[in-house]
Amino acid sequence: MIRIITAQLDIRPGQIRANWEQIEKEIRRAKDAGADILVLPEMCLTGYLIGDLWDQNAFLRECEAYNQRLAAAAQGLVILWGSCAVDWTRIQDDGRVRKYNAAFAAAEGRFLTPRGSRRPYTIKTLLPNYRQFDDRRYFTGAAAAAAEDGLPPGGFLRPFGQRLQGGTLAAGVLLCEDSWDENYAVHPMDLLAAHKPDLFFNLSASPFTLGKNEKRHRMLTAATGRLHVPMLYVNHRGLQNNGKDCYTFDGMTAAYSTDGQLAGEAAPYTEARSAFLFDPETHALTPERPMPPHTGDLLLPALRYGVSHFLKDIGVSRVVIGVSGGIDSAVNAALYRSILPADQLLLVNTPTRFNSETTKHLAADIAERLGSPYVTIPIGDFVDRTAEVLASLTIRTAEDAKNLAPTSFMKENIQARDRSGRILAALAASFGGIFTCNANKTEFTIGYATLYGDMAGALAATADLWKHQVYQTGRALNDFFGEAVIPEGIFTIRPSAELSDAQAVDKGLGDPLVYDYHDYLFRSFVEPWQRSTPEDILRWYAEGTLEAHIGTPLAVKDIFPDAAAFIADLEKWWKLFAGFAVAKRIQSPPLLAVSRRPYGYDLRESQLAPYFTDAYLALKEQLLTH
Amino acid sequence: MIRIITAQLDIRPGQIRANWEQIEKEIRRAKDAGADILVLPEMCLTGYLIGDLWDQNAFLRECEAYNQRLAAAAQGLVILWGSCAVDWTRIQDDGRVRKYNAAFAAAEGRFLTPRGSRRPYTIKTLLPNYRQFDDRRYFTGAAAAAAEDGLPPGGFLRPFGQRLQGGTLAAGVLLCEDSWDENYAVHPMDLLAAHKPDLFFNLSASPFTLGKNEKRHRMLTAATGRLHVPMLYVNHRGLQNNGKDCYTFDGMTAAYSTDGQLAGEAAPYTEARSAFLFDPETHALTPERPMPPHTGDLLLPALRYGVSHFLKDIGVSRVVIGVSGGIDSAVNAALYRSILPADQLLLVNTPTRFNSETTKHLAADIAERLGSPYVTIPIGDFVDRTAEVLASLTIRTAEDAKNLAPTSFMKENIQARDRSGRILAALAASFGGIFTCNANKTEFTIGYATLYGDMAGALAATADLWKHQVYQTGRALNDFFGEAVIPEGIFTIRPSAELSDAQAVDKGLGDPLVYDYHDYLFRSFVEPWQRSTPEDILRWYAEGTLEAHIGTPLAVKDIFPDAAAFIADLEKWWKLFAGFAVAKRIQSPPLLAVSRRPYGYDLRESQLAPYFTDAYLALKEQLLTH
Repeated sequence: MIRIITAQLDIRPGQIRANWEQIEKEIRRAKDAGADILVLPEMCLTGYLIGDLWDQNAFLRECEAYNQRLAAAAQGLVILWGSCAVDWTRIQDDGRVRKYNAAFAAAEGRFLTPRGSRRPYTIKTLLPNYRQFDDRRYFTGAAAAAAEDGLPPGGFLRPFGQRLQGGTLAAGVLLCEDSWDENYAVHPMDLLAAHKPDLFFNLSASPFTLGKNEKRHRMLTAATGRLHVPMLYVNHRGLQNNGKDCYTFDGMTAAYSTDGQLAGEAAPYTEARSAFLFDPETHALTPERPMPPHTGDLLLPALRYGVSHFLKDIGVSRVVIGVSGGIDSAVNAALYRSILPADQLLLVNTPTRFNSETTKHLAADIAERLGSPYVTIPIGDFVDRTAEVLASLTIRTAEDAKNLAPTSFMKENIQARDRSGRILAALAASFGGIFTCNANKTEFTIGYATLYGDMAGALAATADLWKHQVYQTGRALNDFFGEAVIPEGIFTIRPSAELSDAQAVDKGLGDPLVYDYHDYLFRSFVEPWQRSTPEDILRWYAEGTLEAHIGTPLAVKDIFPDAAAFIADLEKWWKLFAGFAVAKRIQSPPLLAVSRRPYGYDLRESQLAPYFTDAYLALKEQLLTH
Repeated sequence: MIRIITAQLDIRPGQIRANWEQIEKEIRRAKDAGADILVLPEMCLTGYLIGDLWDQNAFLRECEAYNQRLAAAAQGLVILWGSCAVDWTRIQDDGRVRKYNAAFAAAEGRFLTPRGSRRPYTIKTLLPNYRQFDDRRYFTGAAAAAAEDGLPPGGFLRPFGQRLQGGTLAAGVLLCEDSWDENYAVHPMDLLAAHKPDLFFNLSASPFTLGKNEKRHRMLTAATGRLHVPMLYVNHRGLQNNGKDCYTFDGMTAAYSTDGQLAGEAAPYTEARSAFLFDPETHALTPERPMPPHTGDLLLPALRYGVSHFLKDIGVSRVVIGVSGGIDSAVNAALYRSILPADQLLLVNTPTRFNSETTKHLAADIAERLGSPYVTIPIGDFVDRTAEVLASLTIRTAEDAKNLAPTSFMKENIQARDRSGRILAALAASFGGIFTCNANKTEFTIGYATLYGDMAGALAATADLWKHQVYQTGRALNDFFGEAVIPEGIFTIRPSAELSDAQAVDKGLGDPLVYDYHDYLFRSFVEPWQRSTPEDILRWYAEGTLEAHIGTPLAVKDIFPDAAAFIADLEKWWKLFAGFAVAKRIQSPPLLAVSRRPYGYDLRESQLAPYFTDAYLALKEQLLTH
């Protein structure tokens, strides 16, 4: 039996030395545990999401030096790891030094060389270059390298061979996307299988998003079953970001057996290492201890892990949250409270005359339930004084004499900026921490938030959640706490910004959105594989299939009396989504990514004028004249 | 003689219908002018920087429909244009429908097919995937398409042939990067030259950056001279962005003769169309009217064009600028004033007791010289009241009872946020326009600016200029106006944020930077091809070659008494550059890109802990113990 230990480490992006220190400890532990093989994930020295740090030659040299150290430390066991391989003798298409996203193996202090290869590593074949991924920006792929040597795309895809336990193990090592080959012309697992590996290892740096693990299980059970080669999948834990989007890495090392079954997986976000036994005779791959596959929703665990890690990374343990009595700030308050001691969280209510007794009471109520310090700082006075200053000014231009007194709408934005840009920012500094952005994805979509106001903050933890997911997360948090830390009234009150009399909750007024419809409409603009546009939406509306296409629980005819109303609503939000909201998102805080298409670096957006296709305009004309 | 007209249109990104309307007019004009050929730039229907709009199938269908219209309109002349070609029968690596960045030719209402090709277009071969470019994210390249058909990389690179003026013209059409082939293994111009084209056309969407046109001239004169094929280069005009970075497109259509000379070029940012004569016998390519190549600095023209276009694009003609009496706000004020009528610009001074009479006088002085409305809104009272509110709060935690009175440093940030987040934002709304971010690249580098404060605004027009370039631009603006609209005192006063007594300009105090050194140090972190890191900097320092490497006009020994002081300074700024300043840049406004490496979407950054390599630490140890 071959004993394999996997270390799904919390890799710190860009911190080669710190990662090496972790790895060194894992090597000692693995030796003590009698491991034959220690498996580390992709890019385990450098981290994966490190942006243009790959430009820095000093960083590349550092990476090479630590690859050498890692190989030298492989004494008495085999180590497999992912890292960057540099070929200083060649360049890439961008003129920079040649870099490969590579997998290394070492034993007896020396690098192993895959059978028939002249390089002491294998090269990632499939370089994802979509959504948040930029692998082709940084690395040359195996197929391009093979072509240079006159070989076919899989020319370098060969197992590492190593004598172990009296036999020779042929280890087929893949890197992340190499096993997500559905849409590629090259199929690394199949090419590698032709060289009779005993076992596949997939070294990954695969960010968590909702539904991703289910898809992985479908793909990898199918592949291992079809090729009759078992697979050990080893992923990062931790939090990495590309600026705008912070991604959690769930770990979740998994074993897939030779008959295409999920034989076990590590607990998400927690387990640091796992042990497996591989039978070289039967090719049975089994966890040493039972590892029942994970069940249950990962949304709240991902949010809690992400926020907690973010705070640790920036060295902050105190957080200020503006609480309005609404669901978004309540969920953020409970989320941070699920991580921090009560007294590290300062909750602040900043009412004006537009805030109802109802919501002020709810805000105080959640603070009491969470046991955190709570202060009320009325801002109406400040807002009025700012408005007065403006009203005292008249600017004479060639056309007119313009008095600068703000309109009611402008005063709404003054309120929002006063809350965050003045009060919360100053409080956070004094309290010794950060303040949060409590916006949700529905608001981000249409820019229903004020820049430097409720769109400000160090992290937007819930900005990748649609409004209905914010409610779900609120319920999940109450379950987590085992009590209603978020009072029921917050779930049932009509959502409202309470910035003017037109949004008075006690009169049943509030946000200009029917969330159970608009959440799903907006989601269809952003998240599906085929993102929808007004042309698609209007066609589905005309066909009567809109509800089924976008997944809203409501009937569209109950919301809009006629096509004209439907179209006016659609155009209003599309113009905001594709227009001014983009300008706001450019200046938005980083968000915690959980969906399959977060704003920021995944959905890449230019500031453009919104566009309606000719086909849309024709269909609109047709519907309006009927 | 073949008469060729080029239309370097101001392409509106994402606006297919509007671009078509422009093109239709150009076709009529070209016919009226007796043109044989009309040449339009790359992606002339869709625009080039449009982000993930390429995901939208409705947008692709629209693009195809307008390609058809364009072909149908080619009656009585040949039209060459760049656009997206969609192959709905194939997918790309990302699983989406196959898209090519393509060049089309049409005559007599029909698409022309390159000789020996089965597709009615040619495909861009070199897809840039570095700096701000993401071509591989969206398009499949010619080499990959050729490989599918079992052909070598240049298999599809063939001229379009068309009978014209009694002969047959072989037009070798290239797309932008195809002519910037230095670092690629495939060389499209050489491959195409083997098929004996009479003339090259390069259809481009090439954003302006400083020094780019000089490089283009070097490359294209060398290539046309070597291959003995003349070339007509046609580029976009206009402004396009990828969210964070707004790029100007200078147009500057250019003719390169068969002996490798620049035979003429269009005036930057202005000229809409140009006419050339091509002699099929001698292959002489000459402008119909003299087009003397452009001389002079394009920095100010780029800034003026970019700002003016940005305002037009967002439909704003009124601008509020906070003027402090310092150079950054003065340059922004003069820059906007060079575009807008005096009364469309509202200049605002928002002093506290830390602002000197000197700078308040200079602020009023520039307003007077620019002739714009000017208001003074003291903010000290508001800042004090905010501080008082905080000082009245004491939060009891398990560890301590923390009074929230802000420190002096915190009050500096409160001032900055009060200026922009409260006053300027509200004034801009009331005045009916935007307010500007006046930060420069030196500040952006180290985060020497306050989020939601002086880092806020609709556009950061000077954020890609180092401090010394801001001064240069100030001089250039005075030259532009033909008088000192920026008073001399603003050039000579010590730069200062004036947020505390420690920054009192009248005592000769100010910013903690030696701009003539730090500008160049910071530039070396960001802009050179080989970006430097502390390891490089310290090695150069030890070697005595730092000044030469980074280009500072100062002697390092005159700034730092010893290695310890040098290292402390280096580490302080590197930690900010690679650390907290990244967090600020994530939330910064869009900037106007002019350098070869702007922050934003060009230099892609993750929020990471700053790193110092082992080699750096060893060298530091060595220097400090000597």
